[in-house]
Amino acid sequence: MKGSVGIVETKYVTFANNEKDFIKLDSGKEFGPITVAYETYGNLNSEKSNAILVCHALSGNAHAAGFHKSIGHKPGWWDDAIGPGKAIDTDKYFVICSNVIGGCAGTTGPSSINPETGKPYGATFPVITIGDMVKVQKLLIDYLGIDKLLTVIGGSMGGMQALEWALRYPDKLQSSIVIAATSRLSPQSIAFNAVGRNAIIRDENWNGGDYYGKVPPSVGLSIARMIGHITYLSDESMHKKFGRRLQTRNEFGFDFSKEFQVESYLEYQGNKFVEIFDANSYLYVTKAMDYFDVATSYGKGSLEEAMKLIKSRMLVVSFTSDWLFPPYQSQEIVQALLKQKKDVTYYNIESSYGHDAFLLEIELEEKIISSFIDATYERRERK
Amino acid sequence: MKGSVGIVETKYVTFANNEKDFIKLDSGKEFGPITVAYETYGNLNSEKSNAILVCHALSGNAHAAGFHKSIGHKPGWWDDAIGPGKAIDTDKYFVICSNVIGGCAGTTGPSSINPETGKPYGATFPVITIGDMVKVQKLLIDYLGIDKLLTVIGGSMGGMQALEWALRYPDKLQSSIVIAATSRLSPQSIAFNAVGRNAIIRDENWNGGDYYGKVPPSVGLSIARMIGHITYLSDESMHKKFGRRLQTRNEFGFDFSKEFQVESYLEYQGNKFVEIFDANSYLYVTKAMDYFDVATSYGKGSLEEAMKLIKSRMLVVSFTSDWLFPPYQSQEIVQALLKQKKDVTYYNIESSYGHDAFLLEIELEEKIISSFIDATYERRERK
Repeated sequence: MKGSVGIVETKYVTFANNEKDFIKLDSGKEFGPITVAYETYGNLNSEKSNAILVCHALSGNAHAAGFHKSIGHKPGWWDDAIGPGKAIDTDKYFVICSNVIGGCAGTTGPSSINPETGKPYGATFPVITIGDMVKVQKLLIDYLGIDKLLTVIGGSMGGMQALEWALRYPDKLQSSIVIAATSRLSPQSIAFNAVGRNAIIRDENWNGGDYYGKVPPSVGLSIARMIGHITYLSDESMHKKFGRRLQTRNEFGFDFSKEFQVESYLEYQGNKFVEIFDANSYLYVTKAMDYFDVATSYGKGSLEEAMKLIKSRMLVVSFTSDWLFPPYQSQEIVQALLKQKKDVTYYNIESSYGHDAFLLEIELEEKIISSFIDATYERRERK
Repeated sequence: MKGSVGIVETKYVTFANNEKDFIKLDSGKEFGPITVAYETYGNLNSEKSNAILVCHALSGNAHAAGFHKSIGHKPGWWDDAIGPGKAIDTDKYFVICSNVIGGCAGTTGPSSINPETGKPYGATFPVITIGDMVKVQKLLIDYLGIDKLLTVIGGSMGGMQALEWALRYPDKLQSSIVIAATSRLSPQSIAFNAVGRNAIIRDENWNGGDYYGKVPPSVGLSIARMIGHITYLSDESMHKKFGRRLQTRNEFGFDFSKEFQVESYLEYQGNKFVEIFDANSYLYVTKAMDYFDVATSYGKGSLEEAMKLIKSRMLVVSFTSDWLFPPYQSQEIVQALLKQKKDVTYYNIESSYGHDAFLLEIELEEKIISSFIDATYERRERK
């Protein structure tokens, strides 16, 4: 029986409290303190061999499964996949999810107070990378007393983190599951992010990043989110979802913003997002995605060379209609792994949902993920 | 020898000066006066059988060929295709191009003075459609004394007008050339337009459309243009043009807007556009594109039924990497025409340039267009 992990709560731990413990970011800057918001589900076994780290995507947070208030409230962002009897089975595995550095859901980010000034960092927050996100996750894993993760798993930006883990800490994970991700963004994806950032920065209320306690740049952030949403859906899924249906009966209205249903949907998504997300975090986190480039960071320009570093089993999953991180980008990763004779499984799931499929095509995805995790667990190294 | 049409100038003519002559817009509203900005190249023959109407795209204008100042200045927007010895050969044909109603380059639009108030129309300008654009072009053609056009030709929104001509005035043209167009926008394309409009309307300076003589909503218009530009290029052409190249040598800078070359390019395009285009026109003209739906307007929901109306020869051209108006949308038009046993020629040009290809893949496009026009001219009806 599939179930829910029930009522859960977000925990917090602070690292790098003293200057000597500051972590060195990929930019070279030494940074701390860093508070990490995280949740755990299930129990760590005695040999500490059943821990799974779940990495979230751009707009995600530490609350991946279960409920914060009463059951029936909105569940965690990947509740479909995490729980008793689900793909990531909390009856068997100890699951950890933490908010990324640079984010705005409990982990230190631009909206956090800089202890040196007593004010929010804003645009003085250091540049971060996917590698920095992973370094901070490693601090948490060490803190939890886990030497080696069974699996690191994530979709979209979470998949980039799963891949980064396999490259940066090859001895610290048994396997990595990279879903709907890429080893580097295409110029087109960078361009969409760039327009979103431009909309935020040019919103008068952005004010150089210093808007906390004042009116935030909600228009810019909302526009950025609307652009993002278009890239998460496929042409086909939009046809199914909206078609060309009008909101009103009038063939010719005069409402420039929401006459077609798709316009109304996007505006709703944009407005909803500004209530839960910080504009500066959007700048930092999308920039981290843009910087991500495995071949350059680990292979002197060669993805194949970079893959030499990997020691974990790899599962790569893409979705046929994903045009943000298209299947060919997953296949590049798979081919580079195969050339290095690495242990890799690949699945290109037929779906019309576009990039969003990783959160929606749960049935087949669940079977693939659970088989892979169970097999990894059976073959795990025992001390 | 291919040449230039040389120095040209934009001419103006005003229609519907009196209320009794007002034109009935598709919305039902009676509207006038309407000034039309237009240019002509070449000479009308004595039988008036060699006239070609060129229709411009979203950001175009009446200045399609030649130079406004001295030769060497920036030529008209389709100078590659129009001139002596070119695809649209001004040695043989009389070429007309006019700015669309709702535009901002000489033809009456939201930035024009409403004679009733003595102020610019702004958002009180009536809703317009592709059909309304064509109605106004018909007034110009009548004024020029042309009973039947040899060809109506256009790319993108210009292609929609060429298709609309064939449906609305089937007896008034020998042929229609529909390039990189569609019989209706997909929800995805509407969504991109909607986000651009949202950026304009939510720019504080938009002020309900009443910003003339004040600070215009340049940020919103610039964001809208940046979004548009992404959709005009293909993933592949962006790879070729920019790759992931950084502007600076620093691997990690801290400039949220233009660190990657593609960011800088888009920002430049956005900023350049606000100098030449009116934000309200952007709202009206993109909305006209979104409304365009041949099956609904002419076929009670059936594209095939709509095509029954067509009497002209048709040439449909698409580009393999165009993802804004993908080849399948051109093929829908072609299939509907074929089912009605209409005279249709179709070419899907191999190109990596995306939607922009219609302005760039000129060599093959030129051959196809000129052969089709010449053949149409040879078979023209003579009185």
